[in-house]
Amino acid sequence: MSNLNDVLATIEGRKHQALTLLKEFLAIPSVSAKPDHASEVRRCANWVADQCKAAALETSVMETGGHPAVVAKNKHVPGRPTILLYGHYDVQPPEPLELWKSPPFEPTVRKDDHGHEAIFARGAADDKGQVLLHLEAITAWQAHGGVPVNLTLLIEGEEEVGSDNLYAFVDKYAEDLRADLCVISDTGMLDRHTPSITSGLRGLVYEEIILTGPNHDLHSGSYGGAVPNVANILCQIIAAFHDTQGRVTIPGFYDDVQPITKEEKKQMDQLPFDEAHWLADLKIPFSSGEANFSILERTSTRPTLDVNGLTAGYQGEGAKTVIASIASAKVSMRLVPVQDPTNVRQNFEAFVRARVPGNVKLELRNFGEATAVITPIDSAAAKIGALALEQVFAKPPVFIRGGGTIPVVSAFKQYLGIDTLMIGFGLPDDRVHSPNEKFDLMCFHKGTQTAAVLYDKLAKFPLRAR
Amino acid sequence: MSNLNDVLATIEGRKHQALTLLKEFLAIPSVSAKPDHASEVRRCANWVADQCKAAALETSVMETGGHPAVVAKNKHVPGRPTILLYGHYDVQPPEPLELWKSPPFEPTVRKDDHGHEAIFARGAADDKGQVLLHLEAITAWQAHGGVPVNLTLLIEGEEEVGSDNLYAFVDKYAEDLRADLCVISDTGMLDRHTPSITSGLRGLVYEEIILTGPNHDLHSGSYGGAVPNVANILCQIIAAFHDTQGRVTIPGFYDDVQPITKEEKKQMDQLPFDEAHWLADLKIPFSSGEANFSILERTSTRPTLDVNGLTAGYQGEGAKTVIASIASAKVSMRLVPVQDPTNVRQNFEAFVRARVPGNVKLELRNFGEATAVITPIDSAAAKIGALALEQVFAKPPVFIRGGGTIPVVSAFKQYLGIDTLMIGFGLPDDRVHSPNEKFDLMCFHKGTQTAAVLYDKLAKFPLRAR
Repeated sequence: MSNLNDVLATIEGRKHQALTLLKEFLAIPSVSAKPDHASEVRRCANWVADQCKAAALETSVMETGGHPAVVAKNKHVPGRPTILLYGHYDVQPPEPLELWKSPPFEPTVRKDDHGHEAIFARGAADDKGQVLLHLEAITAWQAHGGVPVNLTLLIEGEEEVGSDNLYAFVDKYAEDLRADLCVISDTGMLDRHTPSITSGLRGLVYEEIILTGPNHDLHSGSYGGAVPNVANILCQIIAAFHDTQGRVTIPGFYDDVQPITKEEKKQMDQLPFDEAHWLADLKIPFSSGEANFSILERTSTRPTLDVNGLTAGYQGEGAKTVIASIASAKVSMRLVPVQDPTNVRQNFEAFVRARVPGNVKLELRNFGEATAVITPIDSAAAKIGALALEQVFAKPPVFIRGGGTIPVVSAFKQYLGIDTLMIGFGLPDDRVHSPNEKFDLMCFHKGTQTAAVLYDKLAKFPLRAR
Repeated sequence: MSNLNDVLATIEGRKHQALTLLKEFLAIPSVSAKPDHASEVRRCANWVADQCKAAALETSVMETGGHPAVVAKNKHVPGRPTILLYGHYDVQPPEPLELWKSPPFEPTVRKDDHGHEAIFARGAADDKGQVLLHLEAITAWQAHGGVPVNLTLLIEGEEEVGSDNLYAFVDKYAEDLRADLCVISDTGMLDRHTPSITSGLRGLVYEEIILTGPNHDLHSGSYGGAVPNVANILCQIIAAFHDTQGRVTIPGFYDDVQPITKEEKKQMDQLPFDEAHWLADLKIPFSSGEANFSILERTSTRPTLDVNGLTAGYQGEGAKTVIASIASAKVSMRLVPVQDPTNVRQNFEAFVRARVPGNVKLELRNFGEATAVITPIDSAAAKIGALALEQVFAKPPVFIRGGGTIPVVSAFKQYLGIDTLMIGFGLPDDRVHSPNEKFDLMCFHKGTQTAAVLYDKLAKFPLRAR
């Protein structure tokens, strides 16, 4: 008989303390994308390491070539299954700052638009809140005889910038990280009432297009009409990426897209997805996108191309009659099985290159490539995850495909040979990557309970053949 | 016999003092486009007024509803021709700041890329240097019996934002501003060796397009593919503005474009325009633009449409996977005779509106409309201007069409019934509206001399019938 009841009582008793720790965690501006934030990112790694040490884990802050990763283990006992718990402590840039109701790095508890208590801060749901709920579950277990599985925590600092250095890291430390299963809580629930397991993620290619025309900004009166306007040219290139049906026009883009099975399509259509609520939350009257696909398909099983940023010329108040020397766009593509990111990137680059006139210089920068993943929904891991969720939420979970990307999932498959159980507690309106990101306190608490139950049930997870 | 020789000697003697005054003038950041610079703009108006008073002119700083205008007069003598001297003391925004070799409001004298001494600062050539050269000529004349014509100076503070309030101002004070001719030095020379009179200017329509989709920025993974991406849509609208021949596709855009005469085309083709030098200065291998027109035609006698600014989503370092809630573009069109700005604006707006999907909000902002102008090259004013230039530069001027816009020229024609002599001393590589704007000190000095000679010759200008 396990100590689960004691563990859950401890979690209950630490609720206030857990929230205090979450505020500390969220107050550190660990923005991995910004070179000038490197010391804050490292400070955050050290904070995570300190929590692991407080839970009596053997802990190291490891160099990766980029931002450090925290690796921590409980005392591994031969014969028990080993679980690799992955998360990230880095966060997205908080801009635009003026849209935050409370500052992004001053965590604030208040009611959200629907009257639910939540903590507002950059990284609240993605992924600090979800990392901390596991640390809380671990802490509670450690007070009652120890976590009943062999745990290896890998909490990295570069997920939001593509986990570029983690591939080599996982390869290099494959022996240390060897496990039977990976567990990740960096995904969400279909809605607040529907516990969910994520059975697939999209991949990613992120590119920046930088065009340079004349060597300096020009007066649009004196020069307008006779020089290449890189802002106009950039728009022409971007406009060419889609046809009128919302399909991406890059040659070969859909060649390797595997259509979903009729069964999965049927299951997806049966999910209790509330389109009216979804549209109302975004304040738009109808959705957009590729013709003949549902919203859930468009956001999970279909590939996309989206501009994530545009910059050229004068962006201040009022008018300035200038022709910009430089114009740039950040463009990302979400990929689905079995598109190859490198192949997609090369086709993208060729498409852009062919559209740049000879009197304009083109620079292309890559900010990450990741393969889409699908995880089996009838596996032992999925079944155990479902039982844990059902025990806490009092209803069985649904299986959903995620539209986002966790680059490292494919690396775990490739280098460690293991599948990943994605069991997350974010909500669709958590505003991840946006101003006013939040994490619902109910999700935080039930997530902590679920993690504790999950460890208990994973003790019976079948060991892989060695 | 006039006192011109004494006047020119005084100008020679004040060279150092004139440069000191120019530095003072340029140090005031009178950026009319920025609401938070309003007090600096007013300080600059007061500075101009002080110089006028020092030259014993009767001077007022007049309210316009926007930034103030300075109006100053010498003692008007019945029977003498009255000259309205127009200029502007406001400047373009200096951004991007990081590209300035010396700060935009710390005027610095150094050699330019061709080894010529110049003063570098925002507004050096456009238009503070050219306003001050007239004030210097006036000051010198006032020391030797007074300027030999009736002068009315109108130096405004909103030229760089479209002179919106000046139309009503000119209408209201038409009696006070009544004159026989307007003189403006806010244009340039074909090159450093070729004195020039500008015989035409393009008009302008400046619009901002603001698109709003979902009510907040979204995670491109969770939402990408199913929401309107306003950055992509903005690019599609902008791309539609041109066809593959560089022609503007807005219906009716060319309907009112008056082709230039064979004679003017011939004269234009004979100008000593150095295309290789022009391209080398911009560091581009060839020009762009509307098919079958020369560079000089494209930049002066043909209408254009140029993006002046693009803003959407994440613009910082690295990657952020966000779908922006708002995207905007600043777009200006240069017009030629006899395009009607209001008509062009309405067609532009209808073109944009027709391309915005129903789940995206459109806001259009107008930042100015101005009609193109042509001034007669065989007029008495042009002949006198040519004589003045020839006396100082020892060669006759060429007549050129300017690509830029001085909105108020058409207002002077409309409300005061007078033509304008545009006699300017800027150089093509002065980087007006760009970082590292400069004014050549030779141009400043010869411009001062030319102004002094011009007033002398204008004493014989024929009075208009009253």
